[in-house]
Amino acid sequence: MNSPAEQRATTPERFFNAINSYQLTEALKSAVELDVFTAVGEGNTTAATIAERCHASERGIRILCDFLTIHNFLTKQGTTYALSADSAVFLDRHSPAYAGSAIEFLLTPRLRDCHAHLADAVRGGGTALGEGMLAPENPDWVRYAHGMMPMARRPAEIIAAELRREAEVHKVLDIAASHGLFGISVARQNPTAHIYASDWKNVLEVAKKNADAMGVGDRYHVIAGSAFETDFGNGYDLALITNILHGFDIPTCTKLMRKVHFALNPGGRAAILEYLPNADRVSPPTAAAFSLTMLAATPSGDAYTFAELEGMSKAAGFTRVELSPAELGRNRLVIAYR
Amino acid sequence: MNSPAEQRATTPERFFNAINSYQLTEALKSAVELDVFTAVGEGNTTAATIAERCHASERGIRILCDFLTIHNFLTKQGTTYALSADSAVFLDRHSPAYAGSAIEFLLTPRLRDCHAHLADAVRGGGTALGEGMLAPENPDWVRYAHGMMPMARRPAEIIAAELRREAEVHKVLDIAASHGLFGISVARQNPTAHIYASDWKNVLEVAKKNADAMGVGDRYHVIAGSAFETDFGNGYDLALITNILHGFDIPTCTKLMRKVHFALNPGGRAAILEYLPNADRVSPPTAAAFSLTMLAATPSGDAYTFAELEGMSKAAGFTRVELSPAELGRNRLVIAYR
Repeated sequence: MNSPAEQRATTPERFFNAINSYQLTEALKSAVELDVFTAVGEGNTTAATIAERCHASERGIRILCDFLTIHNFLTKQGTTYALSADSAVFLDRHSPAYAGSAIEFLLTPRLRDCHAHLADAVRGGGTALGEGMLAPENPDWVRYAHGMMPMARRPAEIIAAELRREAEVHKVLDIAASHGLFGISVARQNPTAHIYASDWKNVLEVAKKNADAMGVGDRYHVIAGSAFETDFGNGYDLALITNILHGFDIPTCTKLMRKVHFALNPGGRAAILEYLPNADRVSPPTAAAFSLTMLAATPSGDAYTFAELEGMSKAAGFTRVELSPAELGRNRLVIAYR
Repeated sequence: MNSPAEQRATTPERFFNAINSYQLTEALKSAVELDVFTAVGEGNTTAATIAERCHASERGIRILCDFLTIHNFLTKQGTTYALSADSAVFLDRHSPAYAGSAIEFLLTPRLRDCHAHLADAVRGGGTALGEGMLAPENPDWVRYAHGMMPMARRPAEIIAAELRREAEVHKVLDIAASHGLFGISVARQNPTAHIYASDWKNVLEVAKKNADAMGVGDRYHVIAGSAFETDFGNGYDLALITNILHGFDIPTCTKLMRKVHFALNPGGRAAILEYLPNADRVSPPTAAAFSLTMLAATPSGDAYTFAELEGMSKAAGFTRVELSPAELGRNRLVIAYR
C-alpha cells in the first residue's frame, strides 16, 4: 500500500501519455514520409520553408515540428527548427547512416496488426495471427532486408573484425542472412572465405545483389528455403546465426543449433547475434522489451537470456559458450564453440 | 553540424524506440482489458496466478508484465510483480480513482484512424477525415463522458472551490458539459445555483444522470445541440468553457466567446479550462503535444497559449483575463471577466 504522501504524488499523466504513445509512432512515420528531417538538414528551418520543401501546409508542419521538438528529434529557437544530433545522423536522407527506411519494416502492416491483437496473444501465449511474421516467404523479410540494412552496417563490421581477430575462416554459413551484410563483412575480412547464405528465396535475392555490389559475389552462395529444412552441407568453420533464434521456442532453437553443430568442423564457431535480456528479463530495457514483439508476432518466440542461449548450445553439443564484449547497440554477440 | 565526438555518441536507438512506441499503447490497452493491474492489486503476484485470474496464458502474462515493468507500471522482484504507485491508484479497478476506462475514449477507433492519416493532415493542415472528432452527435463524446469522468473529479472540485472563493454564483452556463462534473461541482458548492448544460443530446443524457445521482438534478437543465447554434439565454454570472476551444480555430473561438459574453451578466466570469502551451509551443510537453491531436482529429483546432486565449476573450468584449494558479494536471484555468 502507498502512504497518503505517495498517493498525493501519484498522477494519471504517465498512464495517459503512455496510452497516447502511438501518436509518437505516427508523428515520426509522417515526418520520415514527408522527409521533414532532410528538409531541415538542407537549411529549411522555419515552418513556412519546410512546408514548401515537403509539399505540406505550414500549419501542419508547425504542429508536427513542435511535436518532434517535444520528443527531442528537432530543436527549436524562436520559430527556427534544427536537427537534433541523432536526427542529423540517422534521419536526414543525405546522411550516409540514414535509417529512416527502417519504418518500411518496423511499421509493416502485418507487424502492427500482430500488436493490434496483443490481448489475444497474451490470452493464447503466442501471436493471434496464425504464423505471424514467420509465414514462409513472408515479403516483410524483404522489407526487413531493405529497411534495416543501414542499421546493420556498423554491427556487421564490428562482428566480422571480432571474429577475424580470433581466427581466419574459409567456409562460412550465414543463417537468416537477410540483407547479407553479416556474411559479406566476414567475406571482406577473410579473403579466401566462401559464404553460404540461408534464407527465403525472395530475401536471398537482396543478399546476392549486395554481395555482388560489395565485390564478394564470386564467393557468395545461396541456400534457399527454411533453415530448419534445407541441407546446409558441412565443413564450415564459422556459422553466423543473426537475429533468428528469438523467433522460435527453446526446443526448436536447440534443433537448429544441433543442425549447425553438425555442419561445423571440430573447433568451429557459431556466432549468435541476439537481443539478450538479463536474467531479470526487465533489463536492459530495449532487449528485454523485445519479448513483447515476439509474443505478438510469433507463435512461440522470445528474447533469450545468456543462460538460455548457453543451454540450447550445450544441449546441441557445443562445448563452450562465451559472451563477446563487443558493443552492438541493442544486440549482443554470443559465441558457441564446437 | 555535429563534432566527430557528438557523431560517435549518436545512436539510432531513440528513433527505433520511438517508432515502436505504439507497442506501449497496445501493451497498456491489453493490460487494462485483461485487468492485469486489478489482478495484481488483489494479491496475484506471479505470472501463473495473474494468468489464472485474467484467463490468459502464463507465458503471455509473464511477457506482458515484464514489459509493463520496463515501463514502470509494475515492479518486479525475482518473479514477483507488484503495482507501481501510479498503477495502484489509477489502474486497479478497486481504486476509487480508477482511470483505466479512459482507454474507451483515448483509443476510440475514430481517434486512432485520425492519427493513422497524420501525414495527410500535415499536408492539408487539418484532419484528413472530414470533420474528424467534431462530427455532430459523434458517439465518441459519450465514450469521453464515461471514460474521462474519473479524471475530471479532482479538477472539477478544485475549479469549483477556486471560483466559489471569489464569489457565489446563481446561474451557470456549462458549455461542452460532457459528464457534467464541472457544472455539478459548482452546483454543489453554490447551494442556490442552477446549471444550464450545453452539449450534444446523447452526451447530455450522461450529464443529467450524473447530476441526478449527485443530488443536484433539480437544479440541472440541459440545452441540447451545437454550442455555436443553440440559444443560451442570458443572466448568467458564470460560464464554464471546459476543453472545447481547442477544437476550433481562433475566429470560431472568438465567436463562441462573444456569445458567452452576451449571455453573462455584467461582472460575470467565463472560466476556460484548456491545455495551455507556453509561447514557445513546445512546453510544457503534454499541453504542447496536444496540438498534434487537434491537427489529426479536427479541421482547424489547436492548443492555445495564454496570449491567444486572452486575445480571443478581449476581442469578444471581456475586459480582463487572468491565469489561475490552480494546479490541474495537464490543464490550466483561465478566467475572463465581463
